[in-house]
Amino acid sequence: MPATPLTVVIFGASGDLTARKLVPALFNLHRRGRLPAGTRVLGVSRTQYDDNGFRNELQEKISNFFRSAGEEWHETEWAEFAQCLHYVATDPTAPGGMVPLQNWFAEKEGPAGGQRLYYLSVKPELYPSMSTVLGEAGFAQENGGFRRLVIEKPFGHNGATATELNRTLHKHWQESQLYRIDHYLGKETVQNVLIFRFANTLFEPLWNYQYIDHVQITAAETVTVGSRAAYYDTSGVLRDMFQSHILQVMTLVAMESPGRYSADSLRNEKMKVLDAISVPKVNGKPQVVVGQYEGYRSEKGVPAGSKTPTFATVKLNVDNARWKNVPFYLRSGKGLKSRYSEIMIQFHCPPHLMFPLPPGEVLQCNRMTLVIQPNEGIHLNFQAKVPAVDGVRLQPRDLSFSYKDAYAGQALPEAYERLLLDAIHGDASLFMRSDEIERAWEIMDPIIQATEAADAPDPEEYLLGSQGPADAVKMMAADGRTWHALP
Amino acid sequence: MPATPLTVVIFGASGDLTARKLVPALFNLHRRGRLPAGTRVLGVSRTQYDDNGFRNELQEKISNFFRSAGEEWHETEWAEFAQCLHYVATDPTAPGGMVPLQNWFAEKEGPAGGQRLYYLSVKPELYPSMSTVLGEAGFAQENGGFRRLVIEKPFGHNGATATELNRTLHKHWQESQLYRIDHYLGKETVQNVLIFRFANTLFEPLWNYQYIDHVQITAAETVTVGSRAAYYDTSGVLRDMFQSHILQVMTLVAMESPGRYSADSLRNEKMKVLDAISVPKVNGKPQVVVGQYEGYRSEKGVPAGSKTPTFATVKLNVDNARWKNVPFYLRSGKGLKSRYSEIMIQFHCPPHLMFPLPPGEVLQCNRMTLVIQPNEGIHLNFQAKVPAVDGVRLQPRDLSFSYKDAYAGQALPEAYERLLLDAIHGDASLFMRSDEIERAWEIMDPIIQATEAADAPDPEEYLLGSQGPADAVKMMAADGRTWHALP
Repeated sequence: MPATPLTVVIFGASGDLTARKLVPALFNLHRRGRLPAGTRVLGVSRTQYDDNGFRNELQEKISNFFRSAGEEWHETEWAEFAQCLHYVATDPTAPGGMVPLQNWFAEKEGPAGGQRLYYLSVKPELYPSMSTVLGEAGFAQENGGFRRLVIEKPFGHNGATATELNRTLHKHWQESQLYRIDHYLGKETVQNVLIFRFANTLFEPLWNYQYIDHVQITAAETVTVGSRAAYYDTSGVLRDMFQSHILQVMTLVAMESPGRYSADSLRNEKMKVLDAISVPKVNGKPQVVVGQYEGYRSEKGVPAGSKTPTFATVKLNVDNARWKNVPFYLRSGKGLKSRYSEIMIQFHCPPHLMFPLPPGEVLQCNRMTLVIQPNEGIHLNFQAKVPAVDGVRLQPRDLSFSYKDAYAGQALPEAYERLLLDAIHGDASLFMRSDEIERAWEIMDPIIQATEAADAPDPEEYLLGSQGPADAVKMMAADGRTWHALP
Repeated sequence: MPATPLTVVIFGASGDLTARKLVPALFNLHRRGRLPAGTRVLGVSRTQYDDNGFRNELQEKISNFFRSAGEEWHETEWAEFAQCLHYVATDPTAPGGMVPLQNWFAEKEGPAGGQRLYYLSVKPELYPSMSTVLGEAGFAQENGGFRRLVIEKPFGHNGATATELNRTLHKHWQESQLYRIDHYLGKETVQNVLIFRFANTLFEPLWNYQYIDHVQITAAETVTVGSRAAYYDTSGVLRDMFQSHILQVMTLVAMESPGRYSADSLRNEKMKVLDAISVPKVNGKPQVVVGQYEGYRSEKGVPAGSKTPTFATVKLNVDNARWKNVPFYLRSGKGLKSRYSEIMIQFHCPPHLMFPLPPGEVLQCNRMTLVIQPNEGIHLNFQAKVPAVDGVRLQPRDLSFSYKDAYAGQALPEAYERLLLDAIHGDASLFMRSDEIERAWEIMDPIIQATEAADAPDPEEYLLGSQGPADAVKMMAADGRTWHALP
């Protein structure tokens, strides 16, 4: 717990994320007494507000969010929290734009200084210039307390731009000062993968090629790109979901046990997985299936002949002793049947079945499903005896754990609450290191290029509300496997 | 399905078991169309009935059982079933006592003969004489159809008497004609142990000394001996529960996988476990704790200074490669806190814990509980992350499977239905072979002798409704372990 006063500085404070995620998360942390005493939250952007204008604007937006989500709005607690909110109207990248900030800190922190968490809630294109002006103004120097810089994906548009971004950041900032958020890692069920694997005796012995046939990681959305179409079209699902979220989840599933739970122990192990990932190729091309939901090309801002995928499946291998011949099938898309994210571990079938199966019946071999959202939980699909007075008939059933049932009435913490608090506490375990980012792009670059090449076929159209394009099913079928159907 | 007509002959047909278990089971099998067409049920005992008297007597008793258990009474179906019921009043062991039976079969079966399942629902003391007179009358000869003899425990009072009983039985009967019932093996959850272990990939790799610390098998009852006191006092919990039920369950937990699901494959493997069981000794004495519930000695028919245990714990080892240093703690008793039977597998703790535990907190290492009754199901206790915005806190939670939830509204079949149908079908998988019986006594004899010796201490008194005597807890504590508390 910091002894010196803390300021959380949000650059781009008039933006959507501030009102939708960041300030609600800080408000909730405040309500639960998790923020250090005397914490200030400073909003910075070009929009003209004074402190009160900023507070009122946020109160209106956030109370509406709370109410429309059916959550209780805590008027009194907000009034108390609002006193922590401050605002400085400036563009730090404009000439002289840092002066108002320097003045504000000089006045509020005084000579003793303070601790500062900078959150760049600005367009990714501004990361280089923002981080540079902050650095040049001495805002990275840790005198009087820590200085940490939080940024969100996308971290570059490909390997080259990501490396360039890291180089720029490192001019003024130590790697240890950088907190790169992937909010997927803030999800309880994603974090629980490590506890599940490494605080239990039962699963780790089975967690390898001897027992696992393959792994499926799914992040499915029902929403379409909507108003984000113009931006999305420059990115696509492979950048938007695979390069960070899905590869990060995959590292947690595949990694070796770190000796202890510390940021660099964890990130070293994740990095080892990323290093070991290889991309299977068919006729010299990466194994990837891309799709576009029907009507995507009619979305406002999408060029007529856009090849940007809104759905993709990628097959990856991890070339190490644990994962010999165990493919990881990754799948994500928009406009699908359900909003549903899971890790599904398909185990091998028992080496020998002593029970006779009825003719034509195939044994559903054991599966373990870690549901990331919604209905967070764990399901272990096993074979049980059908209650009957004669014979032995098998039927797959679930051993189940549900967060909702286990922690009745208690909403799972929001990822941003978790991640902001970790950044304040200096725990970078759930944040990504520069080498992870760069290696993830090394994996994704050739896959993305294959889908963007001039001679690449158009993505296959799939129906809204479907399981995705038929080619994704064919890709699995070619391996003699099937996708775990979206529920 | 037999082509020739089947007769189920119940000797001791005026007894309690006939009305309480056997005929209800046959009635239910009939209702479900599971009995071969034309099956007859023939009651035999000394009581004077004609067919109708027997039918009416059973109808009254059984309809009352159904109603008091809250089950629907099927009047029309009973009327149909009752036509299968017949009765012959005779004492087969009296001079000429087999004649009425021979006449009945001559008349009903005719020269073509038929198939016969004999059920000895008589006092165990009568097994030798009954099986002998049947044999001498040619009732064991399989001309015109099978002849099978079903008997229930107790199979002898110790090793010597059990061996003697088997020798007598084998004079007229092939081992393959003998169906020795342990109704515990007819329970769905007990049968499911084999499916759980051998139709799944997940559990068998963990099912050995490398991952399992110890096993607890519990069969707890709340009832006291009541009107059975005089008989019970000659037996005690070690004969009544351990020699058959609990040792049988233990064989299913400990055995190797048979190549296929057949009676002798299974029984060979169970026999191998029994052969490998050894009894740990302290100061040359078997490790056993015995107790008597408060007031047992005042039960009607119990001698004042009775040493008969109503509770016992026994520690056994299985001396083979799979179970090196994995004790099996067996526990059973009457007058306890709950009616509850389970198999509990306690796994070792993870070899290394990467997550810091709060000072003074001990990790609850993984447990798997197979609940035999009531609330039949499987619970896998594992460590999950407590949802929280900071840090990593572990908490034991259950992955659960419940028969009640999985097969909503469907009552589990009665053990007797299962076992009678298996005997009709000639499937002896769930019945015990003579060598199993004799070996189980070899294990139990020295344990029982230690509690019955002239210099043996009195069983420790325990409170009604308690967890059992304190010495049972001490026995575990001496091994650095604890009992899974009765719920």
